[in-house]
Amino acid sequence: MTRPFGERLRAAMAQRGQLCVGIDPHPFLLDEWNEPATAEGARSFGLQVVEAVGSAGTVGVVKPQVAFFERYGSAGFRALEDVLDAARDARLIVIADAKRGDIGTTMDAYASTWLDADSPLRADAVTIAAYQGLGAASGTLRLARETGNGVFVLAATSNSEAKTTQTAVIAHGPNHGMTVAAGIVRDVRDDNTASGETDLGSVGVVLGATLDLGDFGVETADLTTTPILAPGFGAQGALYGDIRRLYGDASGSVLVAVSRSVLMAGPDRIVTSIRNHAAEVAECLA
Amino acid sequence: MTRPFGERLRAAMAQRGQLCVGIDPHPFLLDEWNEPATAEGARSFGLQVVEAVGSAGTVGVVKPQVAFFERYGSAGFRALEDVLDAARDARLIVIADAKRGDIGTTMDAYASTWLDADSPLRADAVTIAAYQGLGAASGTLRLARETGNGVFVLAATSNSEAKTTQTAVIAHGPNHGMTVAAGIVRDVRDDNTASGETDLGSVGVVLGATLDLGDFGVETADLTTTPILAPGFGAQGALYGDIRRLYGDASGSVLVAVSRSVLMAGPDRIVTSIRNHAAEVAECLA
Repeated sequence: MTRPFGERLRAAMAQRGQLCVGIDPHPFLLDEWNEPATAEGARSFGLQVVEAVGSAGTVGVVKPQVAFFERYGSAGFRALEDVLDAARDARLIVIADAKRGDIGTTMDAYASTWLDADSPLRADAVTIAAYQGLGAASGTLRLARETGNGVFVLAATSNSEAKTTQTAVIAHGPNHGMTVAAGIVRDVRDDNTASGETDLGSVGVVLGATLDLGDFGVETADLTTTPILAPGFGAQGALYGDIRRLYGDASGSVLVAVSRSVLMAGPDRIVTSIRNHAAEVAECLA
Repeated sequence: MTRPFGERLRAAMAQRGQLCVGIDPHPFLLDEWNEPATAEGARSFGLQVVEAVGSAGTVGVVKPQVAFFERYGSAGFRALEDVLDAARDARLIVIADAKRGDIGTTMDAYASTWLDADSPLRADAVTIAAYQGLGAASGTLRLARETGNGVFVLAATSNSEAKTTQTAVIAHGPNHGMTVAAGIVRDVRDDNTASGETDLGSVGVVLGATLDLGDFGVETADLTTTPILAPGFGAQGALYGDIRRLYGDASGSVLVAVSRSVLMAGPDRIVTSIRNHAAEVAECLA
């Protein structure tokens, strides 16, 4: 029986800190790494990043960006399967950044893809988007808990265009009067509480580090037991020194996601770059 | 130079009507079809549906549901590539029902995957979700127009859990005071208008047939030049006889999506089932 995701994530953060290294075989990064912009290039890049994270020894979580593998069709997914295998062998926690979203049995199929033990694309957690309502993902949350895996639900994302939807005010139902983002944060927290997870829950939220969460009506004090996946550091402009100011009491539950600013170091300097970033994050959270 | 998607869709609807047949290799349908719940089963099922649509001769658009292929990992995507190839050979318009959504260059990678002429997963259009704001998909809309392909943006979906997000009231920006769904409908319409497409635009919206669109503040009179992908018929409860009441002046731009209720007919009766459904839709829209 696998331990719950929240428990595994807490242990990984306690042991190796709160940095999460992205595996984003973006064409411009493949070029920096002297890899071709092909499935084979994405595979080679991904395997090298996994190896570097293992060598660095100070990071326990990686986050492959599915879009950059999907771009190469079935061959790209074959590459992603190899990268997922390697990350599992390296005993890393893997968050598949897929941002899937749908309804009913279609959403359940996505959940199975990314969370079921028999799936070639299984990860420890998957990111989802709930434009169709978090209720449509109830089967996904349930499957995550049953399999000892996790889900991160987009709440307040790091891009400026997101504000229109995410700060819109809910007009119906129990979260009436809250923003869309705050409603998701509350529902996720309640789902963790209902599941009886008292330390860190298995369902988290995505809360970008480039934002004033107050604009979204999100109270970080409510989030001490909810894992927070936090993009927006590095290339997008947020600084590690701001983590405590941004996430307050919830800072201990934040996974600090970084991709480009680490990956830009290239294959020869990436281990050092990972160690430096991890050390800086640890210092800011000490 | 490929003609714009809106123009191609208009021609297909004029010639073959407004039914769109889903290709959903759901495990329970694979079982009905005596196919295994594997990538090979999904491939065989998908190829048979494409062939049946071709034989029926009264449907011009198919919509593979990506989740049910993705479930089998890279092998599932290989199966989907074969189904997409077959649909292209049969000169059908293909809408990849992927509901992708992300930001920046990540979203651009999804757009490339589903719309670029050199991608193994290319289709004529892709469905997207804009939880992170429609602005984050501007590159996707641009690529669709450049490639002569299309996009359908989720606006008001057919599931009950969706209302929380989709009827939330926008508090910032030019669509202030509108619902999230109505804001997307307006932005899509304006994008079509700005592109100079005067009949049917190349960017459409998803508006479920199970809804009272008035609850979402969506005015169908604004939608006469916006393609509407309409799920919710058949298994989800909407009736073809309701199309005119639901979509009013925009009824001529509606693609009537149906999956389970046609696919349930099984391999021996599916051609007849497609013809019957297409005839009923045509009669309701005559």
